[in-house]
Amino acid sequence: MTSAESYYPNEPSAPKVITSEIPGPNSIAQIKQLGEHFDSRCAYFVVDYNKSNGNYIVDADSNVYLDLYAQIASIALGYNNPKLIELMTTSEMKNALVNRPASGNFPAVELDATLQKVLKVAPKGQDQVWSGLSGSDANELAIKAAFMYYAQKKRGGDAVPFTQEELTSVMDNQSPGAPSFSVLSFRKAFHGRLFASGSCTCSKPIHKLDLPAFDWPHAEYPAYAYPLDTPENITANKAEDERCLKIVEDLIVSWKSPVAALLIEPIQSEGGDNHASAYFLQGLRDITLKHDVVYIIDEVQTGLGATGKLWCHEYANIQPPVDLVTFSKKCQSAGYWFHDPLMVPNQPYRQFNTWCGDTARMLIFGAIGQEILNNDLVSQVARVGEYLFAKLEALQVQYPDSFKNLRGKGRGTFIAWDLPTGELREKLLKTLKANGCNVGGCAEKSVRLRPTLTFDEKHVDIFINALTKSVAQLNN
Amino acid sequence: MTSAESYYPNEPSAPKVITSEIPGPNSIAQIKQLGEHFDSRCAYFVVDYNKSNGNYIVDADSNVYLDLYAQIASIALGYNNPKLIELMTTSEMKNALVNRPASGNFPAVELDATLQKVLKVAPKGQDQVWSGLSGSDANELAIKAAFMYYAQKKRGGDAVPFTQEELTSVMDNQSPGAPSFSVLSFRKAFHGRLFASGSCTCSKPIHKLDLPAFDWPHAEYPAYAYPLDTPENITANKAEDERCLKIVEDLIVSWKSPVAALLIEPIQSEGGDNHASAYFLQGLRDITLKHDVVYIIDEVQTGLGATGKLWCHEYANIQPPVDLVTFSKKCQSAGYWFHDPLMVPNQPYRQFNTWCGDTARMLIFGAIGQEILNNDLVSQVARVGEYLFAKLEALQVQYPDSFKNLRGKGRGTFIAWDLPTGELREKLLKTLKANGCNVGGCAEKSVRLRPTLTFDEKHVDIFINALTKSVAQLNN
Repeated sequence: MTSAESYYPNEPSAPKVITSEIPGPNSIAQIKQLGEHFDSRCAYFVVDYNKSNGNYIVDADSNVYLDLYAQIASIALGYNNPKLIELMTTSEMKNALVNRPASGNFPAVELDATLQKVLKVAPKGQDQVWSGLSGSDANELAIKAAFMYYAQKKRGGDAVPFTQEELTSVMDNQSPGAPSFSVLSFRKAFHGRLFASGSCTCSKPIHKLDLPAFDWPHAEYPAYAYPLDTPENITANKAEDERCLKIVEDLIVSWKSPVAALLIEPIQSEGGDNHASAYFLQGLRDITLKHDVVYIIDEVQTGLGATGKLWCHEYANIQPPVDLVTFSKKCQSAGYWFHDPLMVPNQPYRQFNTWCGDTARMLIFGAIGQEILNNDLVSQVARVGEYLFAKLEALQVQYPDSFKNLRGKGRGTFIAWDLPTGELREKLLKTLKANGCNVGGCAEKSVRLRPTLTFDEKHVDIFINALTKSVAQLNN
Repeated sequence: MTSAESYYPNEPSAPKVITSEIPGPNSIAQIKQLGEHFDSRCAYFVVDYNKSNGNYIVDADSNVYLDLYAQIASIALGYNNPKLIELMTTSEMKNALVNRPASGNFPAVELDATLQKVLKVAPKGQDQVWSGLSGSDANELAIKAAFMYYAQKKRGGDAVPFTQEELTSVMDNQSPGAPSFSVLSFRKAFHGRLFASGSCTCSKPIHKLDLPAFDWPHAEYPAYAYPLDTPENITANKAEDERCLKIVEDLIVSWKSPVAALLIEPIQSEGGDNHASAYFLQGLRDITLKHDVVYIIDEVQTGLGATGKLWCHEYANIQPPVDLVTFSKKCQSAGYWFHDPLMVPNQPYRQFNTWCGDTARMLIFGAIGQEILNNDLVSQVARVGEYLFAKLEALQVQYPDSFKNLRGKGRGTFIAWDLPTGELREKLLKTLKANGCNVGGCAEKSVRLRPTLTFDEKHVDIFINALTKSVAQLNN
């Protein structure tokens, strides 16, 4: 597929903003109405999804935006995708929706075929899956798997029975049945907002305040100098990797409770699009192997193609493969990939719940995966990302202050940069909306681009025009 | 609707078991195949949902069972409900599935109408809702709301800003930003399997082993003598309520960390169908008010009609209404109901995540709720439950040892009893399957009935026949 033949032949040809303010009057009225019984304070605008198409999102005031945020990086193919609409008429989808199976106890005859489809897009080295409902849920389920695996190993293998003391103490939430194991994550990480995932999250206080947390450690995530490829920055960044690897190993050997698992995003997305090098990610594999720590990669935001690989950590070719990889967002479903049969707990009903995922969302994941493979959308993302990055570099030359730490080169459309202040970042995002582009931020002063996988060169041109205009307005 | 006019005119007229063993050969082969990449060890049998209808579930070997387990108590109306199938053709469902909104940032124009439908079945005294994805998720979200509410109050109100010490310490998972608050739950409780919900769960060690837990207290849940209405048992059960209320209050004033919330099921379902009296549930309201503890009722399994009221705790007419009520299972959606505007945290993005629920599942919840109201299914459940309970009482006279502690009188079809041992319970469930009835257990030796809300008198008769035969076989 080239930019000439569009994935969505009927999508709008350009954005169109009608209202003088965003959100417009209809959105404002509806946000207020919604607020009567639902927390609607975070709404950017109210969306008319029937009118939205491909890479364009249309709001309740008929404003048409090119969407580079895509439901917080969770729409893979664009709005009203014909293949997904088709899927709605299948008996598989009917059963998943209307007869929602408790898939652990009463799996559907079609479940295996559904999983086979999903497994076509598994990361290299992973061939099994456990299914959850959201990114937080996926990470918590993976953490559970990691703890049980770690404890079994420590106990002397999966055949060693629980002791009476374990069986008794666990009912009082006490050790040894409920052991004081910990998960090591990183500063600026985002892994979700429940209590274990929330203890791993370390991006902003607002996500965590007033909530009890597990006393788990955060290591430092490498902070690189950009651009990555100058000799001077190569040396500095290698030293940064070494410094951070040492912190990780020091924490593992010294932390007040045994570190059972390490959890990391290959690019810290909410935390500011901080990238980890292949060297760093492989270094973590070496350390985790040395200290018997379960290695979990969180691909909730980076996964399913947006970085120009199906899974971002595949750039690092980590050997041997990591133990668990979590997914959600663009997959629409959620869960974790794994390969070691011992990662399945030694007894049934240890990793279990009523629904064991949502087969409706698994079916959608399978269909999205098939579209990605059929249309080689991952290669398209790599190609479009290169085109987009070059345009941004050109803008950076013109407006260096508005494009600090431009990053994501060679990582598809998964691109970000910093503004000098959070206020200027907010102003830029607002101006971009007025100029017809829906774009998100991350961390305090970063702009992040999270378009769909069908975003192509013609969309890039439209976006770059709007961005050029917006940055010029910002600098006036 | 009476038993003469069936809700599902085309459902089978009787169960039919073909295979000599359950699971049959097709199920066994498919469970094995599924096990190649998914933990399938808990599968009872593999289901052909296309062939299932109403209250009958059909397996991969064409065995037809009357279903009194209903996907672990999560199917409200029966299989292949026409109204839910109809819903699949709407543009609302298309948008929810194909264009899954991040409803916090980009709510759909139709979201308010969807919520209005759902709110028609809100518990008395509750008029707002926050949406989640599963029972565990609902409870964890409610616990988060409770902690934030409690902290705001303790801080002096929702206008008091966070201190610098809070903002800093929380990033290290330390107090005061991440305070050592606790949730009081009960022995034998089941509230889910993530880390906060898991710390509240106290039904079986297998749910909790090898997982770190918060150091939170479990009070004693009253254990009543049955039948409830003999003068002697009335006196004994009142004393049991007083004993347990005292334990709750003692724990609240003496626990090592402040008890911010109390979480309780009106009937402990996984934990053995243990009922709490109206007196006990009101007593908890008095204690929680006295000590400023947030009162959360978990209606994940008891909710949406199965007890002969829309919400089981409405039997207790608790005044003033409890602070939060969680739901999932039969609602297909999940989340919590509330009424105090201060239960919405003082800043946006504190109770937030990418999807803020699943509007596809909310639409289904709304449609189920409408069906329940239109057909007065709650009254039907009450009526059918009375009919069923009387039949069980008659059987109890005949086989007292096989029907110990028969309970759930006046609680619709939400009925359970105990066998003398876990082994006998398993044998009874197995025999019931061979005789065409799919029934679940709970705790160590209880049988629990969890049919749909469309289960009527003719189903009762079929079930009682199968049960009579099975109990006779058990006692031979």
